[in-house]
Amino acid sequence: MDDSLTRENTGLMPYLVAASQVVGVAALAVTGAWLSHYRGGFSWDGAEQFNVHPLCMVLGMVFLCGDALLVFRVFRHETKRATKILHGTLHIMALIISLVGIIAVFQFHKKKKIPDMYSLHSWVGIVTFSLYIMQWILGFIMFFLPGVGYALKSRFKPFHVFLGFSLLVSTIATCLLGLTEKMLFSIPEEYSKLPPEGILANSLGLLLVTFGLVIGYILTREEWRRPPLPEEQALSMDFKTLTQGDSPTEP
Amino acid sequence: MDDSLTRENTGLMPYLVAASQVVGVAALAVTGAWLSHYRGGFSWDGAEQFNVHPLCMVLGMVFLCGDALLVFRVFRHETKRATKILHGTLHIMALIISLVGIIAVFQFHKKKKIPDMYSLHSWVGIVTFSLYIMQWILGFIMFFLPGVGYALKSRFKPFHVFLGFSLLVSTIATCLLGLTEKMLFSIPEEYSKLPPEGILANSLGLLLVTFGLVIGYILTREEWRRPPLPEEQALSMDFKTLTQGDSPTEP
Repeated sequence: MDDSLTRENTGLMPYLVAASQVVGVAALAVTGAWLSHYRGGFSWDGAEQFNVHPLCMVLGMVFLCGDALLVFRVFRHETKRATKILHGTLHIMALIISLVGIIAVFQFHKKKKIPDMYSLHSWVGIVTFSLYIMQWILGFIMFFLPGVGYALKSRFKPFHVFLGFSLLVSTIATCLLGLTEKMLFSIPEEYSKLPPEGILANSLGLLLVTFGLVIGYILTREEWRRPPLPEEQALSMDFKTLTQGDSPTEP
Repeated sequence: MDDSLTRENTGLMPYLVAASQVVGVAALAVTGAWLSHYRGGFSWDGAEQFNVHPLCMVLGMVFLCGDALLVFRVFRHETKRATKILHGTLHIMALIISLVGIIAVFQFHKKKKIPDMYSLHSWVGIVTFSLYIMQWILGFIMFFLPGVGYALKSRFKPFHVFLGFSLLVSTIATCLLGLTEKMLFSIPEEYSKLPPEGILANSLGLLLVTFGLVIGYILTREEWRRPPLPEEQALSMDFKTLTQGDSPTEP
């Protein structure tokens, strides 16, 4: 974490960021332990190819995407460009890892002749992933390619931020749906007796919810927003002066 | 909707509020139609007692709670007291209706000797409902009982707002889990062939997600916040002047 966090009033934020990482790593560890211990571990060609799916989705779409959202709160005094590159890098990793996870489950279904895309898990999941791809393309065009004006970026940013966090939330909901399906498919009789695997899977669900809650709390605290660096502030003030006349939201 | 909405810059907000109501009522109608047409309708004593559960939870914990959150955006020029009473009234209705829904499912399980509280749906649901009760008690003490100081209210409000919206989101996730369970219990063989009931249930899931997204978007747009009335502003300014010295978040 950036040392400079301590130099300004970020209150509980450093502790909550640390808590989010503890919860996120715990969720990953529980996912790995559950799939290794109860579901036969991992392989790409065998019956365990399915298990690659939950692991990759929790790592890519939950943990790395969650951390990508935190970047702008944690690295407060780096240049915006450096912070954006880190944000983009985490999202490239998330995209590749979650693509591997999605390919794993479709290949597994095909080999086992299991129908695709009928469950609510698959519907919410595919909508979420399609919007994630759209978010990726639009975000790349708007914030990485040169030539996009400051005004357009400023208007697009709230949508990008809102969609980004919404996608994390709906990914977590999709994970919970997947966990429920997996329990009812794999241990349909035992699940209602709360066996260790059921307790572990339910606890994983609560860990994922907690991860989303902590990240959501950090992101929605106004006063923990990344303050603009002096040079960004100057640019933003120039822009405000230029547009004040036709910007009805300015007081 | 308040006429005065059109007098200030609320942009797309009135349309999004209308959209949230259309989506919310559609979700309620689809829930009712699904349970009536495919699950035998409603009764308190018979086998259909279960069906009271999803209907009450969607009406109470999703629709009414969602609308209770919108109250402070929609009624912008009423007194804060009147708006708070409306917020509280919607939450009283939500609390009673969802309690009926929870009693329905526990009574049904008891009669049918179905185990309780083993699934992720029940775990996330009971945590959400317990926090909702806590939120109710704390919110009532802080914002309705006389004698709580302005400073304490101001510090508590962000937690109340954050927890309120988080509870709506986790309620929606709980509904999706319940829908998935119900499909896998009721039509385990047919679900994978995407029968009309499966399509209806999945669509209901997407409607509930859409309801949460629209409400979330309305609530997170800074510029659509309820502006303080002149008398509230005066009070708030006095408070700021009094506390500026020891309030490190003020610039």
